[in-house]
Amino acid sequence: MTIAATGLPPAPKPAQRAQGVSPFIVMDVMNAAEAIERRGGSVVHMEVGQPSAATPASIRAAAARALEHGRIGYTQALGIGSLRARIARHYRDTYGVEVPAERVVVTTGSSGGFILSFLACFEPGARIAITAPGYPAYRNILIALGLEPVAIPVGPETRYALTPELIAKAHAERRLAGVLTMSPANPTGVVMTPEAIAAVAAECRRLGLWYISDEIYHGLTYERPATTALAADPDAIIVNSFSKYYCMTGWRVGWLVVPERLVRVIERLQQNFSISVPMLSQVAGEAAFDATDECEAIKAGYAENRAYLLKALPEIGLGDFLPVDGAFYIYLDIGRYSNDSMSFCRDALENAGVAITPGLDFDEERGARTVRLSFAGSLAECEEAVARLGRWLKTR
Amino acid sequence: MTIAATGLPPAPKPAQRAQGVSPFIVMDVMNAAEAIERRGGSVVHMEVGQPSAATPASIRAAAARALEHGRIGYTQALGIGSLRARIARHYRDTYGVEVPAERVVVTTGSSGGFILSFLACFEPGARIAITAPGYPAYRNILIALGLEPVAIPVGPETRYALTPELIAKAHAERRLAGVLTMSPANPTGVVMTPEAIAAVAAECRRLGLWYISDEIYHGLTYERPATTALAADPDAIIVNSFSKYYCMTGWRVGWLVVPERLVRVIERLQQNFSISVPMLSQVAGEAAFDATDECEAIKAGYAENRAYLLKALPEIGLGDFLPVDGAFYIYLDIGRYSNDSMSFCRDALENAGVAITPGLDFDEERGARTVRLSFAGSLAECEEAVARLGRWLKTR
Repeated sequence: MTIAATGLPPAPKPAQRAQGVSPFIVMDVMNAAEAIERRGGSVVHMEVGQPSAATPASIRAAAARALEHGRIGYTQALGIGSLRARIARHYRDTYGVEVPAERVVVTTGSSGGFILSFLACFEPGARIAITAPGYPAYRNILIALGLEPVAIPVGPETRYALTPELIAKAHAERRLAGVLTMSPANPTGVVMTPEAIAAVAAECRRLGLWYISDEIYHGLTYERPATTALAADPDAIIVNSFSKYYCMTGWRVGWLVVPERLVRVIERLQQNFSISVPMLSQVAGEAAFDATDECEAIKAGYAENRAYLLKALPEIGLGDFLPVDGAFYIYLDIGRYSNDSMSFCRDALENAGVAITPGLDFDEERGARTVRLSFAGSLAECEEAVARLGRWLKTR
Repeated sequence: MTIAATGLPPAPKPAQRAQGVSPFIVMDVMNAAEAIERRGGSVVHMEVGQPSAATPASIRAAAARALEHGRIGYTQALGIGSLRARIARHYRDTYGVEVPAERVVVTTGSSGGFILSFLACFEPGARIAITAPGYPAYRNILIALGLEPVAIPVGPETRYALTPELIAKAHAERRLAGVLTMSPANPTGVVMTPEAIAAVAAECRRLGLWYISDEIYHGLTYERPATTALAADPDAIIVNSFSKYYCMTGWRVGWLVVPERLVRVIERLQQNFSISVPMLSQVAGEAAFDATDECEAIKAGYAENRAYLLKALPEIGLGDFLPVDGAFYIYLDIGRYSNDSMSFCRDALENAGVAITPGLDFDEERGARTVRLSFAGSLAECEEAVARLGRWLKTR
């Protein structure tokens, strides 16, 4: 007798709330690109949001030394003490901001930092303002944790950032519990000015809201350095990561800086949700702060790519984008070619051999006429992508 | 003007639901033990739930080779394909159960597996049956995710395991959505028989409940091997980890086996909650399956410790415990000495120099008269702990 034949109740179904989590379209692009490559086709990858450079050798060497010692065990839930102290020092050295090491929490990537800070700050059903366009995981993590993202459309009039006015309006209409900003931003590449960040922080103070500042692309700026929200308000929650500037995506290690009153709450959450962060990744993270020469050389490559693309893209009819202050993305308006970025990207992949990401990953409303290009690869790849896109656009 | 002087609304407070997450008492024990050691005191550590042995050399060598290659990037959200295939093979080799690699999900420790499976299976407010005594993070993760743990007291009459009768009764009273069992169990060391697991799986089928089986101590059994719930029901959700048998706690890598209908849901959750699992840990995990000789030698040490303690503990008046079928824990009734396991453990630490864990971590009701001893260290440590505890108990 098979179980199917027994007349038992139907097997339980996946939870509705989990099904509300949308997939990353970029993952589908990657899979389609890989399929083409398996068939022997050639693809220039401009879709992936990670450095193509290897993790700097000195960072890997630190991990290799720890491997020799042998014991790779749990660490303290808040992170290895020397790493927390080193991160605190980074704030003094880089931004001139004093942060006690006790307020630094090592996390399993910025992903871990979002989960911990959202759970520590927000009651079920709480509303959190984010930008559209913005990083899609914000929305999906919030929904999965029973919270409500309030996506505020932003555009060139506010340099694609939230402002006190936008926050006050959303709060009046929807009763917010928190505000989340990102600078430099994915996908827009926009860096908020110190004044813009201070204004958001002050408005959050005025309204009694949590302010979470995602700073994972810090270090990757091309005109002026990015400001940490801590400089404006010591009560801001900072999310950061070793993934981008230090080329450590696959290590899954990042950190939070949180107000003192959240430390114990987050410690208990981390004990239960992770026990601790991967030890080797923490050791590597500590070494990362001494790998500045290697990281700056990699960043110089991005700067070259950026300068090339800012000049070359307009020449092939793709000139409608923001200045690209930081990160390694160009967020393009393709409205003169298409109102369907999904099919535009599919077409670009199949007929131009260039993988790019539809804006719908970042903006459910207006992303149908935008795409994101990542320039975290080599200059040769950027040149090839432009050549291919240019030829292809002429045929459209 | 300081912010404090502005008459602004009070700064936001940590979320109530996060404050419902209780700390691990064992962590406090560890901190107190470290404080004694810093003062120059001597402590035998029987409190920590992790192997004192280093990760086997062949596993570390695999990670070292990956480090040399340099690029430590994101992997597929569900895990590296070859690791998923190797885990699937493990089910065939070890249990004679066929599992398609597509149903294997690599996770950031079993912690990551719990978060993913709880979110994928359960709507907010859903009730999940667990045992008391049991692993405390179950309760805390469930609460933090807006779910409701239903702790069912178990005792010697059911060998500290859930039974169909207990599940049916809880379901009739509380309307369950799922059942979670662990075998071998922390803290009791009990291994459920194949019949006991099959009976639980059948009852979950009968009632239309999700059945989650935590098998992270598989491999660590001393009388007969543990059975996977998959042998009883291919619809069971399996949570496993490389942490215990393979001595890989600090790597934070484990896996799930899930029914086909959960795979895409979990893939999207993982994309958003983790992006991917640490790459080096996945490489190491794949190598772990070839480190059986080293792991068996370590396990032989536990078996020696266990045999010694089963004989020696009764001789010092600590004879009231279960048979310790598996894992590396002895769960002791100390009722003849104390009805306050917290102060008993504090006293044992301060006056005997032995760190043990109060049962209150595992059983909020009855844990006041139990303690947990971990024997994942050396035989010499076990002998020293018994000598110290024996001298100390004579003075009580």
